[in-house]
Amino acid sequence: MSISVNPLSVIDNKFDNGRKLGREEESPVLPAAYDTYEGVTVDMERAPLMEPDVFSSRLEASISQWRKQLKKGVWIKLPIKKMNLVESAVKQGFVFHHAEPTYLMLVYWIPKVPCTLPPNASHQVGVGAVVVNDRRKILVVQENSGCLRGMGLWKIPTGIVCEGEDINAAVVREVKEETGIETEFVEILAFRQAHKVFFGKSDLFFICMLRPVSFEIQTEEVELEDAKWMPFEEYAAQQAEREDGLFKSITEVCVEKLCGKYDGFLPVPMKAVFCGRSNYFYRSGKNLNMVDYS
Amino acid sequence: MSISVNPLSVIDNKFDNGRKLGREEESPVLPAAYDTYEGVTVDMERAPLMEPDVFSSRLEASISQWRKQLKKGVWIKLPIKKMNLVESAVKQGFVFHHAEPTYLMLVYWIPKVPCTLPPNASHQVGVGAVVVNDRRKILVVQENSGCLRGMGLWKIPTGIVCEGEDINAAVVREVKEETGIETEFVEILAFRQAHKVFFGKSDLFFICMLRPVSFEIQTEEVELEDAKWMPFEEYAAQQAEREDGLFKSITEVCVEKLCGKYDGFLPVPMKAVFCGRSNYFYRSGKNLNMVDYS
Repeated sequence: MSISVNPLSVIDNKFDNGRKLGREEESPVLPAAYDTYEGVTVDMERAPLMEPDVFSSRLEASISQWRKQLKKGVWIKLPIKKMNLVESAVKQGFVFHHAEPTYLMLVYWIPKVPCTLPPNASHQVGVGAVVVNDRRKILVVQENSGCLRGMGLWKIPTGIVCEGEDINAAVVREVKEETGIETEFVEILAFRQAHKVFFGKSDLFFICMLRPVSFEIQTEEVELEDAKWMPFEEYAAQQAEREDGLFKSITEVCVEKLCGKYDGFLPVPMKAVFCGRSNYFYRSGKNLNMVDYS
Repeated sequence: MSISVNPLSVIDNKFDNGRKLGREEESPVLPAAYDTYEGVTVDMERAPLMEPDVFSSRLEASISQWRKQLKKGVWIKLPIKKMNLVESAVKQGFVFHHAEPTYLMLVYWIPKVPCTLPPNASHQVGVGAVVVNDRRKILVVQENSGCLRGMGLWKIPTGIVCEGEDINAAVVREVKEETGIETEFVEILAFRQAHKVFFGKSDLFFICMLRPVSFEIQTEEVELEDAKWMPFEEYAAQQAEREDGLFKSITEVCVEKLCGKYDGFLPVPMKAVFCGRSNYFYRSGKNLNMVDYS
């Protein structure tokens, strides 16, 4: 969503009831930015301090104006320090779109037609690391909280991708943080999509193959009970590995990969011209050396 | 995160100052649920109506109690109709974790050690559909909004995965909604991860191969200008296809796939014993017929 600044000063509005307005009260319409989807965004972080009743009447006047201009979605970004205004927005029909630690984003859909605004973020992204050394030992950990605590199960290191972090960077970081082992990213072996994992949201869990480049383990002690190198066959023979669908599926792709019979997805750096962003395109690496990505 | 009900009635608390409490005022500690991560969740949807000053003092007493019990994260789920209480929570140090249309989730971390609570959802998930018929024509569309509007570019149908929706179902639904074409899911060819795509969040965009089972196009008119079957070579020869990294990468995997030289990821239904959920594990289909998934 690209946002362009709204030159409000040129908007002709008629809310002054004929009274000559001073510089401070040029318009009751709230300062806002317009976007290419007929949306309007009010950033209350930048707006001057105002009482709830003033905000209420200005918001009402603003929506009336934007309705005439055939605007569609109205967004209000309300900082945590201005929560005294939230009830005014809710009373005018705004609902919540998303929140970050220090602000709440509210939204109101003006047209009579069904709302086509983008939903808020729907997925958390997790990573699991398959790190196997030259002696066919796999790097495994035991966690000290969560549903697997105390079960004696050895599992691959896992973690959550941070905001703005690439999957291939996240998995290398997690292995380093949890076990002290330095690795190089090889490929994405597989992934699992699950629903209603936390707060009703979904989860995408990427199983990644990494190549270890250091071997001495330093166990992170806040979240882990222990970490070690374990013979791969011993890991795969654990009861849970044989019974749980996810554990079993991970072991199966590992076995195929270790036999040289499996192709995962490789990250290819890529620049999208239209959006101007650099990022990774993950694809089968089978014929990748034949492709010219220059 | 698994949440278990907190039997508050058995908690010994000392906030009554020696006064005998009636049924209605048994404890100033707010009703809450405990989880296996030493977290506490206060659901204000179910709590009786209370004034902000009463909520403030009860919240203060509650946190004091939970601190003694070595609890870590305190969550407050505040429904949109009770926003009169939000400032009280903020004044006690709560910040926002996430919001859905009708509630705001606030959170407070009690311990002195760094916060290990899970972040809110970080990614939106999109799908793009590669639908090629027997005459080597690809299904393409032109959109009537966004950054590509008016550029004359024909692109593959795309859309956003709904809350709780599987990727392989979402892409079939989007193609049907946008073009009226019925399809069968074949495989995930590749995916792209991008950052700061909307409201600072990231985006995972899965490019999927589908097999058409109907052929007559009915263009959806709210979001699309047009839709048609286009000779694949003509699609690939568009100026944008040759210049933009994403468009180019999609075309390259399509070419390899159409030549029978590419293996994507296939969805395998899977049940995880520990979490009790059914979902899909996406993996290379190369040796899949050799694997026993019973």
